[in-house]
This record gives sequence, C-alpha cells and structure tokens, in this order.
Amino acid sequence: MNERTASSRPGEFSLIERYFAPLATSAGAVHLQDDAAVFAPDTGCELVVTKDMLMAGVHFFENDPPFEIAQKALGVNLSDLAAKGAEPKGYLLGLGLSKDISEEWVAEFCRGLKLVQDQFQIDLLGGDTISCPQGPLLSITAFGQVPTGQVVRRNEAVAGALLYVTGTIGDAALGLKLRLDEALADKLELSAEQRDFLLNRYLLPQPRVGAAQALRDYAVAAMDVSDGLVADLGHMCRTSQVHASVQLESVPLSDAASAMIAKDAAFRETAIAGGDDYEILAAVMPENAGAFEKALQTAGLSCSRIGELHEPEATGPAISLSLNGEAYCLLGADGFKHF
Amino acid sequence: MNERTASSRPGEFSLIERYFAPLATSAGAVHLQDDAAVFAPDTGCELVVTKDMLMAGVHFFENDPPFEIAQKALGVNLSDLAAKGAEPKGYLLGLGLSKDISEEWVAEFCRGLKLVQDQFQIDLLGGDTISCPQGPLLSITAFGQVPTGQVVRRNEAVAGALLYVTGTIGDAALGLKLRLDEALADKLELSAEQRDFLLNRYLLPQPRVGAAQALRDYAVAAMDVSDGLVADLGHMCRTSQVHASVQLESVPLSDAASAMIAKDAAFRETAIAGGDDYEILAAVMPENAGAFEKALQTAGLSCSRIGELHEPEATGPAISLSLNGEAYCLLGADGFKHF
Repeated sequence: MNERTASSRPGEFSLIERYFAPLATSAGAVHLQDDAAVFAPDTGCELVVTKDMLMAGVHFFENDPPFEIAQKALGVNLSDLAAKGAEPKGYLLGLGLSKDISEEWVAEFCRGLKLVQDQFQIDLLGGDTISCPQGPLLSITAFGQVPTGQVVRRNEAVAGALLYVTGTIGDAALGLKLRLDEALADKLELSAEQRDFLLNRYLLPQPRVGAAQALRDYAVAAMDVSDGLVADLGHMCRTSQVHASVQLESVPLSDAASAMIAKDAAFRETAIAGGDDYEILAAVMPENAGAFEKALQTAGLSCSRIGELHEPEATGPAISLSLNGEAYCLLGADGFKHF
Repeated sequence: MNERTASSRPGEFSLIERYFAPLATSAGAVHLQDDAAVFAPDTGCELVVTKDMLMAGVHFFENDPPFEIAQKALGVNLSDLAAKGAEPKGYLLGLGLSKDISEEWVAEFCRGLKLVQDQFQIDLLGGDTISCPQGPLLSITAFGQVPTGQVVRRNEAVAGALLYVTGTIGDAALGLKLRLDEALADKLELSAEQRDFLLNRYLLPQPRVGAAQALRDYAVAAMDVSDGLVADLGHMCRTSQVHASVQLESVPLSDAASAMIAKDAAFRETAIAGGDDYEILAAVMPENAGAFEKALQTAGLSCSRIGELHEPEATGPAISLSLNGEAYCLLGADGFKHF
C-alpha cells in the first residue's frame, strides 16, 4: 500500500515505525502494532489519569524547538500526576501535524520525549496522529498509579492546614514577559543568566515527580500550579470550601524573579497570578509539617510555607493576600487565562 | 475570580460545571473537581486504552450538528475497544474550541455524549478544554477492560483463519461522496431513503460494542475498519505476516450501496477502500467459525465471511482481491488517506 502525503515528510505509518515505535517499549503497547494498548496497575494500586492538551500559539510558541516542546508537553502531564501523589507509568500521545512540519521536527520532538521517558522510567503506550490546519497540537494522556485509596485530591483541603509550594513561583510567567518583549531584560538590567533562567523556566517546566511520596504521606490536598498560584489556590479553596490566607513575602522567588520585582513591583502580580509554574501547591496539617518538609528535602526538592487555610467566610473572597502585614490587592492585569 | 473569555460563551470553569460535570458520574471522577481521575480495572481484568482525535474539516464537517459530532467522536473510540474484545468503561475528553463556538454548541455536544454514555453504560472521567484557532477539535481517550490476557490483537492473525466483517461495508465512504456532491444522489436515481441511509452511516457510525465477547471467545485477531477495508486488512496482514484473499462478491453491501455500484461499478472501489465504516474485521479459525457466527447473531449483529488468510508470499501484495473469480485491481482513486 502506498502512502501519499500532503507534505514532504513521510506518511503516518512510516513516522510511527521510525520515530514512535522505539518509544513504546512495554509489552502492552506491542510496538504500536495495534490500535489499542493493554495495561493494568500493580496489585494494590489504582490508576490516576490526566489529560493536558497543548496548542501552538496558545501554550507554546510555534518556533519553540521541538526537543523542548516535547519535554514541556510530557512534563506538564507528569506534573499533574505528581501533585496527586502518583508515580508515573506511561502515556498516550495525540499529535496534530500541519503540512509545514518536517520529518526533522518529528525526530527532534521524539528525542525530547525519549529524554523525559528515560528520566522518569515511563514509556509510550499508544496514540493517534492526525493532520490539522494549524499545529503542532499535542494531546497527552498520562497514567500514574497510587496505592489504592491514597490519591491526593485538590478538593479535600481543610481549615487549619498549612499551605506549601515547591520550588520558586512566578519564573515562567516572568520568562514569558521577557519572551514577549525582547527589550525588557535590558530595560530591567537583568544579567544574561537571570534572563536565560526565566526564559528557560517558561520553556522547560520541571515536573516535581519526586514529591509524590511526600504528598501521599502528609498532604490533605494538593495540585500543581499551572493557571497561576492565585487562580489555582482559588480552585483548591472553592472545591474544598475553605478560605486561604497567603503571606506574599513568604512566596518563594528566584533571584531573577526578585530582581524583576525590585525594579517594578507590578511584576509581583505577574509572579503570583501568571501561571505555568508547574510547582506543587499542597495543604498539610500542622502536625505533619515537619515530616513533610523533611520528606521533600530528602527528595531533593525545596518547599516553602506560604499561608494557611481557614473556615470559609460567608461573604468575601476565597483568598486573602497580604504583603508584610498589609492587604495586597490584585489589579487583574495578569493571570486570567483567555479561553 | 472572574473569568474573561474571548467569545460570548461562558468560561472554561462554567462550561465544565454546567455541561461536563453532570456527565462525570463515577466516584473516581469526583465531578471533575480535580485535575486527574482515579480508577482501576475490575479484579482479574486489565485495561485496554485507545485514543482517537477528530478535527473539524478533516474527520467531520464543521457544520455537522454537534449532537452527531459527539456521538461519532465517542463512537469511533468505542469501536476500537470493541474490536479488541473490550467492554467499555469510561473516557477522557479533550476539547479544543475556537472563538466562534457557542454555548449552545457545547450543550448539544454534551447531549450527544450523554446519549452514547447511556447506551453503553460509560461515563466521563475527566479531560481538558483549550482554545484553538480552528475547531472544534476532539481528542478522546477511551478505556475498556478485558479479562487478563484475553485482548484480541490486530497483529496475531494466522494463516488458515477465515476473514469476517460485521454489518455492511462502504456505506460511510459512499455517504461521503453524496455529501461532497449534492447532485450525485439524483444523478444515480437513489431514493431519498437510500441517500439518507448512506449520509447517516457517514455521520453516525455505530460502534459494534456487542461483538466484544464473541471476539474474545473466537477471534485470533481483529480490528475496526476505519481507514477502509483494504487498507485495514493490509495493516492486519503486514503486522501479522500473512496474506489475505478476499472475494469481493462476499463483502456485504447495503441496498443503497448496491444501488450506487449497480449504476457505476467504480463505486465498488469507494466502498472497499473508502473508510469510516467502523465495522469489525475479524480472523477466526475454521473450527470456531460456526460458534463465532452464532455468538454475533445472538448479540444482534450480522457478519459475513469475506475471505481467508494464507502463508505470506515472498513477493507480491499482502492482499489479493477477486470479484466473481476474476482478479480485481484497485485503481487507487480512493482510500489513501491524505496525511
């Protein structure tokens, strides 16, 4: 059977055989020779599944290198799993390719997938490839597992819990600002290292896979920060029916983010409302706080206590923000996702 | 937190709460209040997962009714599961919406999902909604289960097996011809019923979910026919390393398809090469043929024996087609998917 393609790259079956089949190493994926994959969680475990779609021009730039796009696309899904306390197992890949996408793009994209697979010991289970008018479009379904009954939910936070975040907050959103305004880094007198650090935090989020065990053991609720700290904490509070107080001076910032905020205080709002952090927000009861901090430290991850949860207020917002003891109001210039 | 949207429809969270959450009825989906779903196969079973993406303008027409688009999108995934012998369990929905898509579109789309859910006793487990420049775009991951070790593969066909298909072949591809050329039905003197039957077979494929048990019990290999009978049988033969002989006079045709072919014999090629049938192609050993036919009949499904499998030929094609004893050659005008 011939394959005719509308572009210069090989057809779907050649691409699958050449680039994707080598990524599918588990028995249930039968080297992508079938339309469906078979697998099961380990005994005593249940599956955690998540799906994130990424569209060129919306979630990444069309001219981003495919090696990095692949890592981001897979990473944001692994981030979701980690926040649920799940160990990653494998993933399905849906790929929409426009005509202008070359074989080299696909090769580089698969090299990025391989890197993340090797890092976290997961593999490709299957997927689908379609042509689409604009692309690339990525639709990843990732599978993890937790011991049965131990998934960490977003909607089970309770009053009295302490709020933690891993890593540093705001780097990706500030990196995006620098990406969109090439003159900004110089204007703010950032060093090349500071600029590259922030740009890279936008391009290549690091899923906090190592946090899963600590979250299962000690967190009452958790989620990853993708829509921005303020928005995602809002989701946690609304679904859990609690109120959060956050002390912004405790929100961990990188040196580079601090440098931007020192030059223009408005960037603090970008940092806490901007999104794409892929750090983990967790609610932990005070009696477990020490053990939680220690477990994350053992996993090689930093964490910071940024606030606490209370009984919900009858009226008023789900979240109160303060900076050095003063109420802090969002101006709303950032952080709302256009949808 | 406000939601700002770039169109007149409500924001993502309102849409999820209003339309999608009512479709998520299993405990592990927690009413879509979390970023991930939790579930496990029944004891003694393993999961079968499949992913199919559908893009407006590629896999369906942009002006197709959303009630039908939903049924098709979910149906083609259930078709994949059925062909593997799996009982459907649930699905994840990725939805890309362009700005012009209204709240009413979403409501109708969800009404279509609900219909299929109720028909096959499945539910929505989770998903993701994004904005995209052109849409709608649908990315569905469907989960089924089989008793451990009983999945029916595409790549395990063997020489000596008989080839069967369910239902009738070619209706959807011929329906697409009628859709693309509105004058064609009159030109061929089709009745309104014949025309509507074929149009509807393209718009609303019926997944053969009821065939799963018979396939598990009696088929050595199976797959659903989505790329066209010839192409998909080719996939089966190549991945299984067998050769197929098909007697085209035995390929089951609807009255409407027969009427088109009677007027113009070239439509036979459309029928067998065109795709979108979502019938099941199965390889069954002769000693199980009677039981297989009876089991499908009990499930309310028709099936037809269309050929048999042989040892592969060192040279020559993977498939030989004949019509009433004469070799039948494809002219190649249809059936190759542009990718």
